[in-house]
Amino acid sequence: MPVIGRLLRTLDWGDCDPAGIIYYQTYYRWMDAATWALMAQAGFSAQRMRTEQFTLPLVSAECTFLSSPTFGDECEIRSHVELWGRSSFTVQHEVVLVDGQRPLARGSESRVWCRYSGGPGTPLRGVRIPEETRAALGAPIA
Amino acid sequence: MPVIGRLLRTLDWGDCDPAGIIYYQTYYRWMDAATWALMAQAGFSAQRMRTEQFTLPLVSAECTFLSSPTFGDECEIRSHVELWGRSSFTVQHEVVLVDGQRPLARGSESRVWCRYSGGPGTPLRGVRIPEETRAALGAPIA
Amino acid sequence: MPVIGRLLRTLDWGDCDPAGIIYYQTYYRWMDAATWALMAQAGFSAQRMRTEQFTLPLVSAECTFLSSPTFGDECEIRSHVELWGRSSFTVQHEVVLVDGQRPLARGSESRVWCRYSGGPGTPLRGVRIPEETRAALGAPIA
Amino acid sequence: MPVIGRLLRTLDWGDCDPAGIIYYQTYYRWMDAATWALMAQAGFSAQRMRTEQFTLPLVSAECTFLSSPTFGDECEIRSHVELWGRSSFTVQHEVVLVDGQRPLARGSESRVWCRYSGGPGTPLRGVRIPEETRAALGAPIA
Repeated sequence: MPVIGRLLRTLDWGDCDPAGIIYYQTYYRWMDAATWALMAQAGFSAQRMRTEQFTLPLVSAECTFLSSPTFGDECEIRSHVELWGRSSFTVQHEVVLVDGQRPLARGSESRVWCRYSGGPGTPLRGVRIPEETRAALGAPIA
Repeated sequence: MPVIGRLLRTLDWGDCDPAGIIYYQTYYRWMDAATWALMAQAGFSAQRMRTEQFTLPLVSAECTFLSSPTFGDECEIRSHVELWGRSSFTVQHEVVLVDGQRPLARGSESRVWCRYSGGPGTPLRGVRIPEETRAALGAPIA
Repeated sequence: MPVIGRLLRTLDWGDCDPAGIIYYQTYYRWMDAATWALMAQAGFSAQRMRTEQFTLPLVSAECTFLSSPTFGDECEIRSHVELWGRSSFTVQHEVVLVDGQRPLARGSESRVWCRYSGGPGTPLRGVRIPEETRAALGAPIA
Repeated sequence: MPVIGRLLRTLDWGDCDPAGIIYYQTYYRWMDAATWALMAQAGFSAQRMRTEQFTLPLVSAECTFLSSPTFGDECEIRSHVELWGRSSFTVQHEVVLVDGQRPLARGSESRVWCRYSGGPGTPLRGVRIPEETRAALGAPIA
């Protein structure tokens, strides 16, 4: 069973647009943060990612916007890895309003587990996803 | 034939992430700006949209990231409406590096032509896309 | 004695720049959120601000950057109103690293308590700061 | 005489807040981009900064907001170095509406010319500002 990560975010003033609803890029910022939080939960904190020279560039991302929170609303992003490749993986995200559990958005990101060739800013190459990550997040046994 | 909008953007320092490549949300910001620019080109400037109480909320958006520009690079976003509904429409975007035309990303946004019921911040309802917009952007004759 | 608001924020991947440190605008986003949170604590939630047609535009803002958190760090923004005018007020913010209390930044925002003349997007005019706000935040008795 | 850099920016939909005016952080994004553009004009393009391992972290920044542009407005940021230290310098920025030259904001940034000790993400140390930069931007002869 996939492990579900949960991240709370408040919709800030600056996350909204002149229509008074969420500026849609905000969902992508939240999904990005949720993926990093999920990895931290699986033992790969930001600190460790940096030290071991890993990063997680995106291949693609999509999101469907169901309804908008309003400024001040608390939202939860629920995330799990849906597809596991050798070095690539897809994270599925659901965003709900905490108060009443109204679904707000559903999206996914496809990423590659990469290592910097020589520190941040240098070229990246895909590497095998650590077994530790797969196990911690409930990946099926290959 | 669909009319192609063209928008130039420079990749700023703040649009990049610690890996030294484009922070992926930047593409969504650019696609958003490109859609508004396309509407302005079709006679619906930001000013007119406000005056006539129109806005263009999103139903969904997706993007595939092909390669990253680096800080300082000039990029072009090429956009056209791919699908026309009564009130909904889909804009296709291609982002290329100006120098050498290397493709950077390909994405799309599905939006609804909406009117505020009572000014910004009030509920939105979908309305028929103006004939003027459709004609200006090369929509097929219904 | 002024009431101190406390807001927690994690430094996200997208809040950092290619130098691997905080992108400085992030502090202004946090200060903005901290001011709204302080007002919510004083009885003026985002919801109430909207309903009563209030908003808080800025006159000026400044920040001194002392040291940078790194991606993944938890930070606290501590805020209080330092100066009270009739309709204007200045909020002082201190940002510290939660782990070890290292000071990260010190800034302030000058704002005006305003009412929309006719809903969001319409002209703003300064109004007297509600007594309720002043009292809740420990303003000196006039 | 200081050399004036000029950068054009359009106020995008996503740069505005629910009050329908500029989200104030946008000015800081523009000032940041204007400083990098000024350095590029002085011979230090983003590409060269990267290659020579330079970056320009901030010590402090402030801005006074005079009036707001509205979504779709074209704005110009005019920038020059006001104070030159050995490794630190202060850039003054004026933002005006292109149409009619209405002043929108006035701000400044204090920065340090730094070199990465070992590539992006590694510690920074201040270095002497290159003579070439000083000369190109009209610094007084020391």
